[in-house]
Amino acid sequence: MNPTLLRKAAAEALGTALLVAAVVGSGIMAERLAPAAPALALLCNTLATGAALVALIATFGPVSGAHFNPAVSLAEALSGRLATADLAAFAAAQVLGGVAGTWLAHAMFAEPILTVSTHIRVVPGALVSEAVATFGLLAVVLNVGQRSPRDAPFAVAAYITAAYWFTASTSFANPAVTLARALTHTYAGIRPADVLPFIGAQLAGALAATLVFRWLRMPKES
Amino acid sequence: MNPTLLRKAAAEALGTALLVAAVVGSGIMAERLAPAAPALALLCNTLATGAALVALIATFGPVSGAHFNPAVSLAEALSGRLATADLAAFAAAQVLGGVAGTWLAHAMFAEPILTVSTHIRVVPGALVSEAVATFGLLAVVLNVGQRSPRDAPFAVAAYITAAYWFTASTSFANPAVTLARALTHTYAGIRPADVLPFIGAQLAGALAATLVFRWLRMPKES
Amino acid sequence: MNPTLLRKAAAEALGTALLVAAVVGSGIMAERLAPAAPALALLCNTLATGAALVALIATFGPVSGAHFNPAVSLAEALSGRLATADLAAFAAAQVLGGVAGTWLAHAMFAEPILTVSTHIRVVPGALVSEAVATFGLLAVVLNVGQRSPRDAPFAVAAYITAAYWFTASTSFANPAVTLARALTHTYAGIRPADVLPFIGAQLAGALAATLVFRWLRMPKES
Amino acid sequence: MNPTLLRKAAAEALGTALLVAAVVGSGIMAERLAPAAPALALLCNTLATGAALVALIATFGPVSGAHFNPAVSLAEALSGRLATADLAAFAAAQVLGGVAGTWLAHAMFAEPILTVSTHIRVVPGALVSEAVATFGLLAVVLNVGQRSPRDAPFAVAAYITAAYWFTASTSFANPAVTLARALTHTYAGIRPADVLPFIGAQLAGALAATLVFRWLRMPKES
Repeated sequence: MNPTLLRKAAAEALGTALLVAAVVGSGIMAERLAPAAPALALLCNTLATGAALVALIATFGPVSGAHFNPAVSLAEALSGRLATADLAAFAAAQVLGGVAGTWLAHAMFAEPILTVSTHIRVVPGALVSEAVATFGLLAVVLNVGQRSPRDAPFAVAAYITAAYWFTASTSFANPAVTLARALTHTYAGIRPADVLPFIGAQLAGALAATLVFRWLRMPKES
Repeated sequence: MNPTLLRKAAAEALGTALLVAAVVGSGIMAERLAPAAPALALLCNTLATGAALVALIATFGPVSGAHFNPAVSLAEALSGRLATADLAAFAAAQVLGGVAGTWLAHAMFAEPILTVSTHIRVVPGALVSEAVATFGLLAVVLNVGQRSPRDAPFAVAAYITAAYWFTASTSFANPAVTLARALTHTYAGIRPADVLPFIGAQLAGALAATLVFRWLRMPKES
Repeated sequence: MNPTLLRKAAAEALGTALLVAAVVGSGIMAERLAPAAPALALLCNTLATGAALVALIATFGPVSGAHFNPAVSLAEALSGRLATADLAAFAAAQVLGGVAGTWLAHAMFAEPILTVSTHIRVVPGALVSEAVATFGLLAVVLNVGQRSPRDAPFAVAAYITAAYWFTASTSFANPAVTLARALTHTYAGIRPADVLPFIGAQLAGALAATLVFRWLRMPKES
Repeated sequence: MNPTLLRKAAAEALGTALLVAAVVGSGIMAERLAPAAPALALLCNTLATGAALVALIATFGPVSGAHFNPAVSLAEALSGRLATADLAAFAAAQVLGGVAGTWLAHAMFAEPILTVSTHIRVVPGALVSEAVATFGLLAVVLNVGQRSPRDAPFAVAAYITAAYWFTASTSFANPAVTLARALTHTYAGIRPADVLPFIGAQLAGALAATLVFRWLRMPKES
């Protein structure tokens, strides 16, 4: 691996680790402080996730693009902005970082490090939700991320903040984060059996967005 | 329809669909998680709506202006920034997109797709509220949208976030969204009989804002 | 009054009216929806106030500076950025606008238009709180407002969002808004007897900030 | 002390005082209004802290860098952007300002000025949490603060907003603020016995971040 790609992959791993630590950790905190108030717990989990995205995309964006998400890296590769040879390194870094993030959250909250979720997530509407959630995320990334990168941290964070509430699945929208969340028996978990269906729906949404916005953003003169 | 207008109308339809999906979907989620806590439910609905507006205006603004709202398109046409011939296409796209957004929210939450609201919205003060809400929205759009488009996503989202709380009607302020919200028997609904009075009040507010800010923003040298 | 000053005063009146409508209106909504949950009610009132400030300062800033506050106009006059002759017009517009805003909120919520508050606000610590709140507000305005006006809507709104919570008085920090809030027998009210002590503390804080930042921002070479 | 350093130290002291007043004051308000709702109380405390950081970093950043934090000043000194001779003045100003901020919050809420916390904070996971919290804060500061200072208020505030929730310690991440919070027998307090372990963990996190990002941000051509 050349040094530049190594640094980019390290940024993706570190950023995804902190993002997953924020998602899982704030879920633990929310569940501990509001065990019988599901709306309040999700509100706190949402706030922490959205705020973490602002900070982490602003921090790592100029190094690696701050994808933190194989669906985003795939769409960037399909759009010619990420070398196909780098896609595997990005995805591997995101998955490894995500898993490390789950374990880091466990360490911070003195939970057992190695656990597995039993949280059923494939409920009616959940797979449609994941496809829509990822479609919308890619709409934001492909348009704002490229056109005005300084606004991307805010636009992406705002999108996920909304999508936590407007989808029945609370918008995972990220294959690496989905995998990492299978490894926690806490608020943010997803049971392993539901991981592949979620990832399938996410990739379908990402591909649809790539095609739609390839057309929608065609230059006027075409 | 020329290709450019077609793309703009598609952007308006897609953006309005996602906006309405966010409004209706987050309403369903909020009502499910906080059925007996109306302030908390509206707070979560507000957060999701405001955040969706940041993301969607940043995403679609450079393509079509990201009106998502016939009252905004009308004011832009009256101000000479939208061709009168394009106004009908914009409004139609917004209405069709809005309706699709309601149905998309139903699909994501496994609710019956085709329903109609029975939610009474014309309560005392509601029509004054809608006129004020739309006047204020147009104040933001006509000033910020034109002068510093990069700030528009934040200013418009912040305005609607506030207006959900400072109006008795929770600030629909948008004829296309009002129509779309008539088609959901959930939290965000409005019964069909109240749609026309709401739209009338919204258009009155929009026209008043167009006139007031035509004067208020006159160049100094006039 | 020359046309330019007239337009500026109109902007100050209109902006202050909408700001007070947001403060008073969201207070009514919060109290109606969360009558027995004071933290949640203040949270919703805070969110609406902060969001309204973002929108209104972005909207009216380039026209009049978006003071909406005689303490700010006074500090700007003392700093030489507002003509002394214009200070009275600005303050009068803010007071008249603020009162109209209270009445507008009453109209929107179908409350009696003409009422007076009985809410005791001069509790222990309240006057220190108002002085500190206004000092901090002026710190933000005098530094950010002048140096990077595009950031001012966000910095000012963020400051007031915080100050609603870190002061015992919930940070009125504005003589015109204080007067206007005396005229509502709802959540946001302040009884008339407490208005003058509040305004005195606010002006003391504003003057202290003007002096401190005159020194702190001296150019390096001095 | 030369005049320039004196002004910078004054800015650090004033900014840290207002920051600690916001943290401690909003904690008092939250605890008073929501004594039996810990999630809601922390949510309000989080909102006020994050919003205060936006306002204060935007206000004091151009004067002194708006560190408000000896761990940040240390990392900046290690990175060659703060003269070593100035580090002691910065840290002293931050500690003195922080203590003044605690006392100011007490004055505003009519609490006894001089108190000491009995709040046990070294719970399982708390020290790992503080190291991670400070590592992440420095990641944001070292990358965003230097590269795009106009975004720093938002990125830093967003980071702390998230970290209040994703760490078991609610993310003190600041030696001066930790010391200042030992001097309050209210919501935000930390008992004196826990101060040194917290500061040790914070400095470890700050040093780790300094080393990691020295490597990660190496120029491509190296």
